[in-house]
Amino acid sequence: MTQVAEQIAGYDYGTVPRSPVRLDELEQLKQAVGFMGDDPDNLQMASAILVPQAEEMVSAWRKKIGEQPHLLASFVGPDGQPDEGYKAAVKARFVQWVVDICTRPFDEAWLDYQDEIAKRHTPIKKNETDGAETPPVVPLRYLIAFTSVIITTAKDFLAKHGDAPERVDEMHVAWTKAVLLSLSLWSRPYAKESLW
Amino acid sequence: MTQVAEQIAGYDYGTVPRSPVRLDELEQLKQAVGFMGDDPDNLQMASAILVPQAEEMVSAWRKKIGEQPHLLASFVGPDGQPDEGYKAAVKARFVQWVVDICTRPFDEAWLDYQDEIAKRHTPIKKNETDGAETPPVVPLRYLIAFTSVIITTAKDFLAKHGDAPERVDEMHVAWTKAVLLSLSLWSRPYAKESLW
Repeated sequence: MTQVAEQIAGYDYGTVPRSPVRLDELEQLKQAVGFMGDDPDNLQMASAILVPQAEEMVSAWRKKIGEQPHLLASFVGPDGQPDEGYKAAVKARFVQWVVDICTRPFDEAWLDYQDEIAKRHTPIKKNETDGAETPPVVPLRYLIAFTSVIITTAKDFLAKHGDAPERVDEMHVAWTKAVLLSLSLWSRPYAKESLW
Repeated sequence: MTQVAEQIAGYDYGTVPRSPVRLDELEQLKQAVGFMGDDPDNLQMASAILVPQAEEMVSAWRKKIGEQPHLLASFVGPDGQPDEGYKAAVKARFVQWVVDICTRPFDEAWLDYQDEIAKRHTPIKKNETDGAETPPVVPLRYLIAFTSVIITTAKDFLAKHGDAPERVDEMHVAWTKAVLLSLSLWSRPYAKESLW
C-alpha cells in the first residue's frame, strides 16, 4: 500500500536521524490517542479513499492557509511575498505526509520522520531543507489550531466513495487519532524539554 | 445558557489574571481552527446535549486515564498512589470546562481562564490551587494525544438525543474546533516563548 515517492525533494523518509522519542514512548502515545482495535484496519481502508485525493486535500488546506495572513506568514520570504518555491516543495511533502500516515506502519522509521518534520517546523531545521529564507518557525499555536481543519475537512473526502455513514465515521475516527498522534510528536521541539 | 458553578473549589472563572494572549490573537486562532459560520450555533445546540452529560463524559475520560500508567502518573502523590483529593478537585473543574466550552462566549474572560488552565497543567501552577504534591506537569505530548479521546468520544454523547446524523456531525465539527482552540491556548506555557 505504501507509495514511496523518492522523487520528492527533501523527502528523506528512512534516512533521517533517530528520533529522541523511543518506540515504547510511541506505544504510550498510541494508547493515549486511543489508536487500537479496528483503528489500524480502518485507517488502511481510509487510505484507499484518501491517497488518491491527497493532493486535493492539501490544496484545500493550502487555500485556507492562503486566506489567513497569520498562517501565510510562515511561507513568506524576505521580500514580504509568499516564497512560491518553498511553498511548492513543502506542499509535495505535505501530500506525502497524508499518504504516509495512512499507509506506513507506525514504526521506528515513521517515528524518526515525524521528529524530522517537527524540526522542520522550528528554528532547528525550518528553511534548511529547501534553502529558503522564510520565518524560522511555524508557531505552535497555529500548528495545533490548524489540525482542526485537517481533521474536520477529511470527513467529506472520506465520504466520497459513498460508504455507509458508519463506515465513514469509523475511518474518520482512525484518521483523527492518527493525526493527533502525529501532532503530539510534532510538538516535541517546541516544548521546554522537561515539559514535553 | 451558562451554568455558573461558584461552589467548585478553585474554579476562578472571571477573577484570574489577564491572559498574555490578546483578543485579536484569539480571533486569529478562531480563524485557524475554522470556527465560523454556523459553528457557534451548532456548539450551542451541542451544549443542550452535552451539558447534562458532562460529568459522565469526564468519568469516561478519567476511566481511560486510569487505565494508562503514563497518564495516571500526573495524578499520583509522593506515596506513589493516586491523590484522590486532587483527582476529585480537578475532575469537578474538568466537568465545568465541558460546560464552559459549550456555553461561554469566547471572550476575554474565557481567554483568561484558558491561560489559567494552561498554567495549572505546568510547573507554573500545577498543584498550587489544590495544595497537592503530584508531579509538576501534565506532559504536553499527553495533553495533545488525549485530545483525540476528548474529540472522538464526544460523538456518541452527541448522538444520544437521536438527532439526524448530519446534525450530530455538525455539532461534532463545532465541538472539535472548540476543543482544538482550547488546546492551542493550553499549549502556551509549555512552549519556548518565541515558538508559540
